[in-house]
Amino acid sequence: MKEHKTGAIGWNQGKVWFLDQTRIPAEQRIVETSDPAVLAGAIRSLSIRGAPLIGIAAAYGVALDFISSPVARREDLQSRLARVQTLFASTRPTAVNLFWALGRMKKAADSFSGNLWDLGAVLRDEALKIHEEDRSTCEQIGVHGAALLSPGMSVLTHCNTGELATGGIGTALGIIRTAWDKKVLRHVYVDETRPLLQGARLTVWELTQLGIPSTLITDSTAAFLMLQGRIQAVLVGADRIAANGDVANKVGTYGLAVAARHHAIPFYVAAPTSTIDSTMKSGKDIPIEVRDSVELLRQGERALAPEGTEVYAPAFDVTPNELVTAIITEYGVMNPPFGSHLPERLGSLEDHKL
Amino acid sequence: MKEHKTGAIGWNQGKVWFLDQTRIPAEQRIVETSDPAVLAGAIRSLSIRGAPLIGIAAAYGVALDFISSPVARREDLQSRLARVQTLFASTRPTAVNLFWALGRMKKAADSFSGNLWDLGAVLRDEALKIHEEDRSTCEQIGVHGAALLSPGMSVLTHCNTGELATGGIGTALGIIRTAWDKKVLRHVYVDETRPLLQGARLTVWELTQLGIPSTLITDSTAAFLMLQGRIQAVLVGADRIAANGDVANKVGTYGLAVAARHHAIPFYVAAPTSTIDSTMKSGKDIPIEVRDSVELLRQGERALAPEGTEVYAPAFDVTPNELVTAIITEYGVMNPPFGSHLPERLGSLEDHKL
Repeated sequence: MKEHKTGAIGWNQGKVWFLDQTRIPAEQRIVETSDPAVLAGAIRSLSIRGAPLIGIAAAYGVALDFISSPVARREDLQSRLARVQTLFASTRPTAVNLFWALGRMKKAADSFSGNLWDLGAVLRDEALKIHEEDRSTCEQIGVHGAALLSPGMSVLTHCNTGELATGGIGTALGIIRTAWDKKVLRHVYVDETRPLLQGARLTVWELTQLGIPSTLITDSTAAFLMLQGRIQAVLVGADRIAANGDVANKVGTYGLAVAARHHAIPFYVAAPTSTIDSTMKSGKDIPIEVRDSVELLRQGERALAPEGTEVYAPAFDVTPNELVTAIITEYGVMNPPFGSHLPERLGSLEDHKL
Repeated sequence: MKEHKTGAIGWNQGKVWFLDQTRIPAEQRIVETSDPAVLAGAIRSLSIRGAPLIGIAAAYGVALDFISSPVARREDLQSRLARVQTLFASTRPTAVNLFWALGRMKKAADSFSGNLWDLGAVLRDEALKIHEEDRSTCEQIGVHGAALLSPGMSVLTHCNTGELATGGIGTALGIIRTAWDKKVLRHVYVDETRPLLQGARLTVWELTQLGIPSTLITDSTAAFLMLQGRIQAVLVGADRIAANGDVANKVGTYGLAVAARHHAIPFYVAAPTSTIDSTMKSGKDIPIEVRDSVELLRQGERALAPEGTEVYAPAFDVTPNELVTAIITEYGVMNPPFGSHLPERLGSLEDHKL
């Protein structure tokens, strides 16, 4: 299994390296660690973020745990597995890719019957495979999504869904990149994405490196741009998609979906199928992470609001399926009505995998 | 004419004092000046902001000019007047109250036939009158608006429309204050209002001082709160209202109006009649100020986005009249259809002035 040297995370000689995304754009700082707790801390602090990427990071974390300290006795395997799974499962609650990746790692461990000293290498290979699959998934999402755009379109995107959020070129941003290469994209408008400014800090940074023309706006400028006729499609990612097609994604996504509907602009959600959680009947079941109020109250040393201000800071919101024009996965495009069980729709799509 | 000692601006012994609003909430810094250029600079830098308040400030500025350096010869009057009017008219383009107040001051100067040495005092009295009228206007807007709310309602507001934006208790915030006193208000949700955070810095500060319970949110959380059923009305101010009822207000207002319509929540605009510009047929004619990109790119020393990022930062947007549930003025409430000439509607309302 080949090791990744570019992107936001990778495996290198028994260690995991990752880009500390909280430092971008000021600094491109690489952290290297053999400690799963450091990796879990990096997810918690958003040094590593983006639904697919935190799944990959958690997978690497599980492998790291078994490589840095191999399990000697088979009867200790389940408790060790449970411990490292809890470590990562407790980092962030909304993105389901995290739990999906942990499930994959557990399955690999459970089905392993060889010498315990080789388990670490097997788990490392499974993590590298998850990473490699996501890279390929992004490419396919890019192709399927770009096919929906027409030449000369300008699009709006929210938060960051690119190389810094996935194991490959990205989901919504992967589509933007593919569309740009196919010359069917004119311009990208980027929501700054308060409070942590992933759009301003990360998406603009990626687009600039790729030479794709972009304009940064405050989140509250998006609807006005639609009114002005400057946006022909909205492209976002997803942190969890319920069985009925309701989409949990970075807070602000729902408002964009409402505004897109008002202006009859297509609203596209791009995500790997690992983002679909068939155990959640609707978006109402999805746990929504609420962030610390300090993210709205302070910027470094500077107070942005009076002491003691009450804050409501959900990191995500839920967009009801009826506002989604299409869900773009690696298997193809799903249009509404999504029915009550998306995975059934996926079954028929899988035959069309590129 | 009595001098104001509370609020955001006032006249005191031949000078104008104002609160430097860029320092709130960190510091309540009062600046006192006898130099109209300092006052114009304060409007430009947003130390003084809010449509009605910058009108009052400009009126004081004209008076200051004639008091600090009286015109000796009648033939110099018009050029002096033109110079000071240009000084203030060039500060900010969107809020029409500024131009309305300058018009009032010019009318007072033009109709003055006494000894030129008394002109300064006459203009000071006219500015104090404009200030006093706005105080009374706010009270009336508060009463008319509060009558539209039902007990137990929670409302959402955007930017700052209170004491710091007007000569009195405020427009939208004046309604909130009046409704709170009448016990028909449960809670206020406050958009932080990027990029300059007038909601977080100023509105929360005012509400806290008044003991009105409030919760701060990012602008992009508003639609999700509506979906959750937590908001029963949206209340905003206005910087200019066209003859057909289209409303220019702080950027983000339009997105709130779209979201309010989607959720069948009333969307109220509160403004003195001096905000209505009958020379503008529709919102398309209203000049929209575009702010410096630095407001999105830096926070103090910290870079929020990569060097060279292209930014689109309109300070205001335009909400088409069909999304406005009612315009609340000092003369009463106007409901749609507004027709093509709001001032005609105002004529019939004036009879009902409180």
